[in-house]
Amino acid sequence: MIKYNPKNWFGLIFHSYSRQVVRTLFPFLTIMAIYTAAVTFLIEDYFELEFNSTTVVHSLLGIVLGLFLVFRVNSAYDRWYEGRKLWGLLLNNSRNLASKLNAMLSLENKEDRSFFEEMIPAFAFALKDHLRKGAKIKHLKIKDKSIVKYLENKEHIPNAITGLIYKRLNQLLKDGNLTPNQFLVLDKEMKEFSDILGGCERIKNTPIPYSYSMFIKKFVFTYTITLPLAFITEFHYITIPIVIFIFFILVSVELIAEEIEEPFGGDVNDLPTQELSEKIEKNVKELFNS
Amino acid sequence: MIKYNPKNWFGLIFHSYSRQVVRTLFPFLTIMAIYTAAVTFLIEDYFELEFNSTTVVHSLLGIVLGLFLVFRVNSAYDRWYEGRKLWGLLLNNSRNLASKLNAMLSLENKEDRSFFEEMIPAFAFALKDHLRKGAKIKHLKIKDKSIVKYLENKEHIPNAITGLIYKRLNQLLKDGNLTPNQFLVLDKEMKEFSDILGGCERIKNTPIPYSYSMFIKKFVFTYTITLPLAFITEFHYITIPIVIFIFFILVSVELIAEEIEEPFGGDVNDLPTQELSEKIEKNVKELFNS
Amino acid sequence: MIKYNPKNWFGLIFHSYSRQVVRTLFPFLTIMAIYTAAVTFLIEDYFELEFNSTTVVHSLLGIVLGLFLVFRVNSAYDRWYEGRKLWGLLLNNSRNLASKLNAMLSLENKEDRSFFEEMIPAFAFALKDHLRKGAKIKHLKIKDKSIVKYLENKEHIPNAITGLIYKRLNQLLKDGNLTPNQFLVLDKEMKEFSDILGGCERIKNTPIPYSYSMFIKKFVFTYTITLPLAFITEFHYITIPIVIFIFFILVSVELIAEEIEEPFGGDVNDLPTQELSEKIEKNVKELFNS
Amino acid sequence: MIKYNPKNWFGLIFHSYSRQVVRTLFPFLTIMAIYTAAVTFLIEDYFELEFNSTTVVHSLLGIVLGLFLVFRVNSAYDRWYEGRKLWGLLLNNSRNLASKLNAMLSLENKEDRSFFEEMIPAFAFALKDHLRKGAKIKHLKIKDKSIVKYLENKEHIPNAITGLIYKRLNQLLKDGNLTPNQFLVLDKEMKEFSDILGGCERIKNTPIPYSYSMFIKKFVFTYTITLPLAFITEFHYITIPIVIFIFFILVSVELIAEEIEEPFGGDVNDLPTQELSEKIEKNVKELFNS
Amino acid sequence: MIKYNPKNWFGLIFHSYSRQVVRTLFPFLTIMAIYTAAVTFLIEDYFELEFNSTTVVHSLLGIVLGLFLVFRVNSAYDRWYEGRKLWGLLLNNSRNLASKLNAMLSLENKEDRSFFEEMIPAFAFALKDHLRKGAKIKHLKIKDKSIVKYLENKEHIPNAITGLIYKRLNQLLKDGNLTPNQFLVLDKEMKEFSDILGGCERIKNTPIPYSYSMFIKKFVFTYTITLPLAFITEFHYITIPIVIFIFFILVSVELIAEEIEEPFGGDVNDLPTQELSEKIEKNVKELFNS
Repeated sequence: MIKYNPKNWFGLIFHSYSRQVVRTLFPFLTIMAIYTAAVTFLIEDYFELEFNSTTVVHSLLGIVLGLFLVFRVNSAYDRWYEGRKLWGLLLNNSRNLASKLNAMLSLENKEDRSFFEEMIPAFAFALKDHLRKGAKIKHLKIKDKSIVKYLENKEHIPNAITGLIYKRLNQLLKDGNLTPNQFLVLDKEMKEFSDILGGCERIKNTPIPYSYSMFIKKFVFTYTITLPLAFITEFHYITIPIVIFIFFILVSVELIAEEIEEPFGGDVNDLPTQELSEKIEKNVKELFNS
Repeated sequence: MIKYNPKNWFGLIFHSYSRQVVRTLFPFLTIMAIYTAAVTFLIEDYFELEFNSTTVVHSLLGIVLGLFLVFRVNSAYDRWYEGRKLWGLLLNNSRNLASKLNAMLSLENKEDRSFFEEMIPAFAFALKDHLRKGAKIKHLKIKDKSIVKYLENKEHIPNAITGLIYKRLNQLLKDGNLTPNQFLVLDKEMKEFSDILGGCERIKNTPIPYSYSMFIKKFVFTYTITLPLAFITEFHYITIPIVIFIFFILVSVELIAEEIEEPFGGDVNDLPTQELSEKIEKNVKELFNS
Repeated sequence: MIKYNPKNWFGLIFHSYSRQVVRTLFPFLTIMAIYTAAVTFLIEDYFELEFNSTTVVHSLLGIVLGLFLVFRVNSAYDRWYEGRKLWGLLLNNSRNLASKLNAMLSLENKEDRSFFEEMIPAFAFALKDHLRKGAKIKHLKIKDKSIVKYLENKEHIPNAITGLIYKRLNQLLKDGNLTPNQFLVLDKEMKEFSDILGGCERIKNTPIPYSYSMFIKKFVFTYTITLPLAFITEFHYITIPIVIFIFFILVSVELIAEEIEEPFGGDVNDLPTQELSEKIEKNVKELFNS
Repeated sequence: MIKYNPKNWFGLIFHSYSRQVVRTLFPFLTIMAIYTAAVTFLIEDYFELEFNSTTVVHSLLGIVLGLFLVFRVNSAYDRWYEGRKLWGLLLNNSRNLASKLNAMLSLENKEDRSFFEEMIPAFAFALKDHLRKGAKIKHLKIKDKSIVKYLENKEHIPNAITGLIYKRLNQLLKDGNLTPNQFLVLDKEMKEFSDILGGCERIKNTPIPYSYSMFIKKFVFTYTITLPLAFITEFHYITIPIVIFIFFILVSVELIAEEIEEPFGGDVNDLPTQELSEKIEKNVKELFNS
Repeated sequence: MIKYNPKNWFGLIFHSYSRQVVRTLFPFLTIMAIYTAAVTFLIEDYFELEFNSTTVVHSLLGIVLGLFLVFRVNSAYDRWYEGRKLWGLLLNNSRNLASKLNAMLSLENKEDRSFFEEMIPAFAFALKDHLRKGAKIKHLKIKDKSIVKYLENKEHIPNAITGLIYKRLNQLLKDGNLTPNQFLVLDKEMKEFSDILGGCERIKNTPIPYSYSMFIKKFVFTYTITLPLAFITEFHYITIPIVIFIFFILVSVELIAEEIEEPFGGDVNDLPTQELSEKIEKNVKELFNS
């Protein structure tokens, strides 16, 4: 995620789009321009057809299409915001868990303290990578080699980490280092870690339904492909910029929705999962050493 | 659910609709084309009627209809997404339950461990089939023959499985293999299994209210049946493609809503319940053997 | 609630409306037709007035009105769906409570077992009737005469039933038949019964705010009463079907909203509370005898 | 809140508005009529200006304004419904607390029983008045004079009542009249009382943001003030009723939103907090004496 | 937040905008006026171009733009209201925690009582400043110098305060001044403090996605920049006020959304966090001394 000032109007208006959008948008606009020019030429100058054209059909359907696109963007935004909430929860829960363990574990118990100090941020880093291209163990900054070895054989690293934490908590309960009530409190925190993991996986793995996505694209396509016919008799070659303009707006909306609804990548719109992971690391360290 | 790349515009635009949609849509479009042609012929060439036609009425009502259809699709989408959330929860809860039982049950207690290793995924498979055409016991991969026999006499298989798990947990509590606090923790997990079952059944068994569904269909019908009258005096035979185009968009929306709002079938839009069940099976096995 | 196939387009389009809707709608449409005819006759043929008419005002306000009606229907639908969720919860909770009590109570304790086997479905039947015309004790199928007598003196039957269950649970706790932890688990279930009762009563007793309801009706009324003036100069007597058509759509929406927002009656749109109660009865019986 | 039959169309259409609305609306409409007449007279007959007028600008902005007003009413309605939910919860929680205390306290302990029988409804009455013009102790029907005296010195009566109840519960726990588990159950109920209080105070004390409210009013004002210019060249003096009609609809919506979003007063649209408080009183009495 | 009467129409209509809005809006409007005048002059009087202009394109896209802006404002409002809810929760939780500690701690334990009496409001004041320009310890009114010193070395003051409270609670549990059950109850309250902190930080640190924000600004810009072309041929120099009017409305909406979505500052629209903090201080003091 890039930092920006949402109140800087001039900056935002003249800032060029992200490379990804340009790469998708540019060929589309070119094809559309050529197509519109060809249609106009054929009708106006080659066949010299004459017919009544009307903008009524496109006005009417334009409202329906507009509604679809707005809802589309908003459902993408909801998804993005849900992702943000989950990572906010992760930050909170990591702090809570660290703060509780810090209060519950005796200062002498250095082994367990350093175990949790390493594993809580490791979960965040593992989750971040897991939601991108797969977790890499060398990014997790774990010093304990037996744990590194254990994790290397696992497919689902974040799951394996919560498993390790859960086992350690049970051991502490059995050894009497945690009272049953303290265990209950910590169990609740662990449950939320697992819910956050599940929620993030759900957002990542569930695109909008196939028919819905296909329908919006087909609708935008048939809408713009027939658009020249609505303007040609009255505007002649000025039809070309008009069609390009409308097409540009409609496709942009869909592209933005596509970018926003996958909030865990490394794009400009994506959530600052790297920064949040580092914040978790810093906070947890501070909490265990206070 | 088929896997697709939501950013592949060309693929999605030219991909043909699912067979179900075509089967419903095609006769509708044909009938509509014949009807419009007939109306146009009768008015233009047979009776040679002359009257003022206006698109104002259809513009006005078109917005209302558009709003209805968009909300319709979105409420269907909410339902679909709720189903997805429930199955995400199921995956999470199955993992949690397995991970907790793995930590709580001693390694020697092989009987109970293998019981839960079998029954947790069995619940997912049973639920999946229960939401389609009814659970089949042979799909559940249960090796214990007494359990298979017990389940064969039951009507509601997922319910019977949670009943079995619940009984076993109570037995473990009575035998002192679980502490009261551990039992409380597991009871909470079991409650969520039952909530997931209830939520899925609700989604499956509750279509939108009868009047609402009927009204939208009647509205689309009367709207398109009167549409030729709005265009005929100005567009003559070009009315036919215009009416077909508008009709196609309107009916498509309703059809997509219908497809999406039943998310538990085996359609292209349906949730990947089969894959999720298999993932549960794999994860639970990994957790019990780590 | 009648069962219907939401994908049966032809059936739904030509199915006539429910009697209630027809009874309300028909006189309205008749009056509107007479009124429009009278206005048209007076202006066109009697006074032979000439004036500029415009559809702009009605187009503009039509969008606002359309938005209102759509939101109106959707808030009614939300209410309906909340009612459905509450009854889904009731089914689930009844199952959970039965399944837990079945595991907790010893098989010899036939008295308590049969008490709960009777009272859990009795709550559902009592709630169903309470939300219609008031609970009738003879519908509850309670065999224990002392309970029947006790309930006969009560005004609020569902409340009295939860009171009875709650008392019995406390007795079981005092007698040592339930451990404190088990009591806590059952207490949570009972709380949800009471929340379901409260939620259903809220839905039943709270119509939309008076001003809001009045405003929508006044808006529809003034809108349609002035509608003939917008069409008359251009369409003459064709104004009559146009006005009827628009009026029909607008009033239908409001009528559907009214029907849907009271989901506990015996109408075609109402929730299948009778069936759900019977399902609860059947499931509870199965659970206690397994 | 007045009781009304939402299906009584004729009654609702011809029922006059509440006095408050009329008092606000009438001078607005008068001023608007004079203003429009003056503008029309000046342009048409005095200066005899001639210019192109268009309804396009107002059509375009009308949709934006319509969307704002509809969302405005709906967010007001959400607030109203949230208030209703909170009072529904209060009714439920009062019942639950009474029913639980009735089961937990021995029948001999008349002092504590009558304390709770008095204080639970007193909370509802105090909250009702607190949300209107401030709680009055004489409305609370408390017989115990020491409590009356104690409350008289308090500024925040509902808070003081929950404080008293909480203290009594702690005393009962210390005296061994409540087990720790029972205390936990009752503590949860008390937490909800305090959440209800907080929620109601939030709804009462938070109007919509200043800029938002100001913007909508400025928008309605500039919109209607420029409206005559859009109609004048084509409709001359008929502009007056047109402008009044549109203005009436727009201002009504805002007025309804203002009325609905403060749900705790004594208006026709306000919640039946007096009746609900009396219902709580009656129910609690019945529960303690059964 | 300034107090205002939302029903004072005249006051609100003629109240000038906040300085911030004017500072942003005024140069925009000036530039737009100059631009439109220049375009009109060049086309009408300099080049004397003649072409067909149409408002259809801007009508069509205007609806899409309107929808975007309305949703934009509403998502900003949701954020604002979520912030309000969180601070309402903070008030409630502070009261609850104080009321519970008051009941649980013996009257003799003056040290702990005064500790919590100081620290609970200190959290609110620290959070308030933390969400503005960073917490300042001198604003917290803490008398205990060792705590002041401890906090001075911390970066994240609200976090450090909850850490201190949590440690003290654990100490009280270890010393037997709190029973395990009481600790569990207080732990739940503390968890909510941390959730409130996390929620407020999330709202503060998460602007809407970059692409979305950029797109809306680009859309408003291209829309208004092309607007003169739509009106020029018919309205000549009257195009200038028309364009300014539409531009003013569109930009206002975006500016309001920007103001509302950051609810923790000291602006007129911002939440009364200062007042709420003082209320917490007053309430907590009253509760500990009753």
